[in-house]
Amino acid sequence: MQKRKVAILGATGTVGQRFVQLLDGHPWFEVTTLTGSNRTAGSNYGENCNWVLPGDMPSWAKKMTVLQTALGLDAEIIFSALPSQEARDLEPAFARAGHQVFSNASAHRTWEDVPLVIPEVNSDHATLLDVQRKNRGWNGCIVTSCNCTSTGLTVSLKPLLDTFGIKRVFAVSLQALSGAGYPGVPSIDVLDNVVPYIHGEEEKVASEPCKMLGKLGNDRISFAKFPISAHTNRVPVTDGHLVCISIDLGRQIPPQEAIAAWECFAPPEIVRGLPSSPDKTIIVNQGADRPQPRRDRDTGNGMTTVIGRVRPDPIFDLRYVVLTHNTIKGAAGGSIQNAELFVAQGML
Amino acid sequence: MQKRKVAILGATGTVGQRFVQLLDGHPWFEVTTLTGSNRTAGSNYGENCNWVLPGDMPSWAKKMTVLQTALGLDAEIIFSALPSQEARDLEPAFARAGHQVFSNASAHRTWEDVPLVIPEVNSDHATLLDVQRKNRGWNGCIVTSCNCTSTGLTVSLKPLLDTFGIKRVFAVSLQALSGAGYPGVPSIDVLDNVVPYIHGEEEKVASEPCKMLGKLGNDRISFAKFPISAHTNRVPVTDGHLVCISIDLGRQIPPQEAIAAWECFAPPEIVRGLPSSPDKTIIVNQGADRPQPRRDRDTGNGMTTVIGRVRPDPIFDLRYVVLTHNTIKGAAGGSIQNAELFVAQGML
Amino acid sequence: MQKRKVAILGATGTVGQRFVQLLDGHPWFEVTTLTGSNRTAGSNYGENCNWVLPGDMPSWAKKMTVLQTALGLDAEIIFSALPSQEARDLEPAFARAGHQVFSNASAHRTWEDVPLVIPEVNSDHATLLDVQRKNRGWNGCIVTSCNCTSTGLTVSLKPLLDTFGIKRVFAVSLQALSGAGYPGVPSIDVLDNVVPYIHGEEEKVASEPCKMLGKLGNDRISFAKFPISAHTNRVPVTDGHLVCISIDLGRQIPPQEAIAAWECFAPPEIVRGLPSSPDKTIIVNQGADRPQPRRDRDTGNGMTTVIGRVRPDPIFDLRYVVLTHNTIKGAAGGSIQNAELFVAQGML
Amino acid sequence: MQKRKVAILGATGTVGQRFVQLLDGHPWFEVTTLTGSNRTAGSNYGENCNWVLPGDMPSWAKKMTVLQTALGLDAEIIFSALPSQEARDLEPAFARAGHQVFSNASAHRTWEDVPLVIPEVNSDHATLLDVQRKNRGWNGCIVTSCNCTSTGLTVSLKPLLDTFGIKRVFAVSLQALSGAGYPGVPSIDVLDNVVPYIHGEEEKVASEPCKMLGKLGNDRISFAKFPISAHTNRVPVTDGHLVCISIDLGRQIPPQEAIAAWECFAPPEIVRGLPSSPDKTIIVNQGADRPQPRRDRDTGNGMTTVIGRVRPDPIFDLRYVVLTHNTIKGAAGGSIQNAELFVAQGML
Repeated sequence: MQKRKVAILGATGTVGQRFVQLLDGHPWFEVTTLTGSNRTAGSNYGENCNWVLPGDMPSWAKKMTVLQTALGLDAEIIFSALPSQEARDLEPAFARAGHQVFSNASAHRTWEDVPLVIPEVNSDHATLLDVQRKNRGWNGCIVTSCNCTSTGLTVSLKPLLDTFGIKRVFAVSLQALSGAGYPGVPSIDVLDNVVPYIHGEEEKVASEPCKMLGKLGNDRISFAKFPISAHTNRVPVTDGHLVCISIDLGRQIPPQEAIAAWECFAPPEIVRGLPSSPDKTIIVNQGADRPQPRRDRDTGNGMTTVIGRVRPDPIFDLRYVVLTHNTIKGAAGGSIQNAELFVAQGML
Repeated sequence: MQKRKVAILGATGTVGQRFVQLLDGHPWFEVTTLTGSNRTAGSNYGENCNWVLPGDMPSWAKKMTVLQTALGLDAEIIFSALPSQEARDLEPAFARAGHQVFSNASAHRTWEDVPLVIPEVNSDHATLLDVQRKNRGWNGCIVTSCNCTSTGLTVSLKPLLDTFGIKRVFAVSLQALSGAGYPGVPSIDVLDNVVPYIHGEEEKVASEPCKMLGKLGNDRISFAKFPISAHTNRVPVTDGHLVCISIDLGRQIPPQEAIAAWECFAPPEIVRGLPSSPDKTIIVNQGADRPQPRRDRDTGNGMTTVIGRVRPDPIFDLRYVVLTHNTIKGAAGGSIQNAELFVAQGML
Repeated sequence: MQKRKVAILGATGTVGQRFVQLLDGHPWFEVTTLTGSNRTAGSNYGENCNWVLPGDMPSWAKKMTVLQTALGLDAEIIFSALPSQEARDLEPAFARAGHQVFSNASAHRTWEDVPLVIPEVNSDHATLLDVQRKNRGWNGCIVTSCNCTSTGLTVSLKPLLDTFGIKRVFAVSLQALSGAGYPGVPSIDVLDNVVPYIHGEEEKVASEPCKMLGKLGNDRISFAKFPISAHTNRVPVTDGHLVCISIDLGRQIPPQEAIAAWECFAPPEIVRGLPSSPDKTIIVNQGADRPQPRRDRDTGNGMTTVIGRVRPDPIFDLRYVVLTHNTIKGAAGGSIQNAELFVAQGML
Repeated sequence: MQKRKVAILGATGTVGQRFVQLLDGHPWFEVTTLTGSNRTAGSNYGENCNWVLPGDMPSWAKKMTVLQTALGLDAEIIFSALPSQEARDLEPAFARAGHQVFSNASAHRTWEDVPLVIPEVNSDHATLLDVQRKNRGWNGCIVTSCNCTSTGLTVSLKPLLDTFGIKRVFAVSLQALSGAGYPGVPSIDVLDNVVPYIHGEEEKVASEPCKMLGKLGNDRISFAKFPISAHTNRVPVTDGHLVCISIDLGRQIPPQEAIAAWECFAPPEIVRGLPSSPDKTIIVNQGADRPQPRRDRDTGNGMTTVIGRVRPDPIFDLRYVVLTHNTIKGAAGGSIQNAELFVAQGML
């Protein structure tokens, strides 16, 4: 199979670097373009990107020249790791120009005709693209992946919603530093410290899961109808977002039933076959003090959602903890898996 | 005034060291006895205590000989920083022998005739001592301070309970390492990591506040009648427990009303006059990202409860964050303040 | 005594904040002016300064308006916490305009007629001001304090130089984050990590001690004549620079002799009487694993140099470890103490 | 090829776990026995080993029963991760009983007839086994790997010794937490802190490299004749020991010559072909602020030594920084590579 040409917008940032790392040796995609800010455009990626990930920069990337983020790119598929403000203007322009944009930015997640997708959760929302293209007269498209904290939360809710229904959700996050990009959080703000506030985060966690868990019908998504109350905190962890969840299912269930729902959960076959899909979407770790970010974030190469501490809740019905690798499944890896899904579905 | 003689049981541990530090120069109390484990008993405190607190060990303590924890101490008041297992046997023995025991251990917090006290919250529970002494025929007594995570939570709930009433409480903690004692949590377990489990903690957080916020009548306490759902987490912070709280007050109130209730809150005059009482029991920090452990834990010399991020809750009525210095107000400082209260009330 | 009016240039940065904190209640100085960048100038200090120190901003500072850093300030003494680039142009202009500038910046440390002073080390260099004023026709002056890593190193070398002489020095630092200012080091660069490089630091550590330990004669300083080889590292510590030192004294001495030299060291009486001078310039901590940044940095309110691990060196003559609080003795506190020295000497 | 049966002594500790992890799928060795303390002996490894490494415990290990560390094991080769005290008695007993013991403990490193080996450095010392077996009448043997801090230091010295000769070495380490085993360093001792002392470490760093860099002749090793002065520090890093080195080569050389010596360095062909040998023994990272533990420790699967910051030294001739993964190349990985070497050489 001829590999499809892909571009990475904002390739020098932390999420951009994850795209480069995860697309190294990808069976379907070949990176032909890396773009950066005006400061880095024109320079050599190997020399001017301050590579902050463990492991070496792939050698093909070292040799590439960073382009300005502007129309005229030689790439069918575009992965956008742009800051939200830039994404607002540029992503629609690229879509209009015929590029298939898979965006990690929050700018268009709330647009009615833009799919917000986690393949294991709502691959059926893909057909919203027909609406988007008709509405806007685009050959290209915009598909968004969700906020990194919403990712694990939503994956964990999906089997519960299908099996038991959901009434209300409390979610308190302990979020990693890499979620803030680079330079991100100053070290002096977070050493021997935690920060109980992340700008704009609680609003996203309260709404995005309900869009993804909603139903597509009559050319629009009717959102899942349960409220989410979120507290979001920054903690001194490099990678891996942990979320403590209390959930009202409408009735008390034995924890074992929830565990069974998670362990039996299987996404549609087309999703299971994607190159970036992990062997198991969800793993329930029965260790008394698990999951933990450093020890469990790389499960399934960072694409598996890890759940633990499943127990009754004295107010609602169930308490548990969920962990996601925030820059893999919760960002670059999720967008790549989305692009794979749309390719596999013949939507591109 | 003649100072009262006090002993510190378990003086070489982290809470024991805080007792030594906080009793340095105390206007009412004079430390006459330090006890330790069999390993350290008989040795010099200055030489054999691995002092882990910032600042120097007080010079009077350096010269003291560590005694075994056994009957026959020359001290009217005893501060117990014993491990729970030892406290179980020894504290009643000391009370029976006529000592006034102010314990930081969890062993007797749940006994019906043992007061569990935060002076600003339930100084009126002090008279439960009459019941205790009558029941047990003791000249001495046992008075307990509460779990370190329950402390700030309970202080923050008190004005809300008085002003609005409370129906239900969600509480998710981010707890400091010093709460685990010494050696406590291995560094390799918590660097670049958080641990979503603390043994026995969630049970304490769910019950202790309801005892302290209960009413004393007919020689016993009727517990406050609202459920608390707790998730407790260990984070890489030296001191300062942060708790994220969502609370059902039975009706929506503007956050400003809760802030007013906290800011107007004043404990009884006898409590305000205690040597260890801070100028303000509660401070509401209006910074968008406060309170934070490293920056706010020393407010009021570690005796003030700091509240922030007060905002509506989409499910219950109010969300906020509360911070307590866990080894000062939440442990040694709280016990000392308790002893001061009982002295001031003429109960000893 | 009428307090002297002082201004703090660059008052919103981390060192500027330390000046504000340490000048709160100062017996000789009254802060009349705070300056900041164009971004903050004109605004209220309390509202626009992101206060990053533990403890509250002093209330008098909260009410002050931040001025632009420009001539025309109503202050006799100026404490400069400006970035080096700005200091280069502005400090001479203020000195020319008659202000007594005590600078924490590196810009003028190497000028031949600018004293580089640690009061306990080289208070006699103060008279270099006469040269400076004559050379330049200034009524004001510039006096500099040294690099934060050089501080403790130099204090520890002074008694050794006086007692034994020094041939060669190896110095490897483990430096705190606050030394990099704010925002300084991104958290993702230093969590679960150390960085073996600090821009420009090794050069300063190699030269500044030799200026301060030099002799003033014939209107100029002849530098101390021993080479210093430095390796400088950034470590995840908030405050407190630790330096591992191996030193060639020209002959083997028992460690006890060096300890005696440090413990007997007393600066001139005029220095001992300064408000910011600690009780003891140097403390030798005999704990096997001391000094440690978090546990020892606040010794003498952050103004005492703590030495430990004194032992023979298999190549040179002595090995030891030295700790300084880098933003107190090593920055703002050192500059304030310098200004006190020049006031006490009648040089201003 | 029939795989050789191997046992891991002390398999539940951190180094023991690394042995388990690194032997998973090993082409020459098959783990038949895991031993543990009396507390864990008889139990299931999967249930009773507190697995602290990232990634899952291999499934074959989960099912194994932990045996007591006692004679009678069904294994030709034994990897010992025993505490030094136990190693002292047990390792000779196993060697006498015919087992080939590859030990990570320090107990026998200083024995004259026990090879202390890093394959890339002194594979020729292997023949010391003939002396050992003759001396002691053993069929088995003891071969030791060196202290984790000595590892990278020694690898970096080897090409310099061969090319330029070495007169004197200063080495200051910043060592990771995993080097202290489990539970190891209490978190409260090392958060926002560094500890300038590691028991017994400086002595090992001063002597082990000289044994390994020594010459085998007349049935004994004549040590390399240069002194090493070491300062060893513990820093809050999970894995990866960094060492700052200043070296006297007898003459000034341009840094580029040292870099060339490292980059051209190639171990004997038999070493290069071992399954655990990395592609490159040494990599010189030219980044201004590299190597860094978190970013570079996994180079060559943790088996490559990374060098950086090569520059002149104002006292000696050269300064540089070296990084080693302390529990892989510096412990379990090094021992496995040693066993591979002795197998390849036909010594077992």
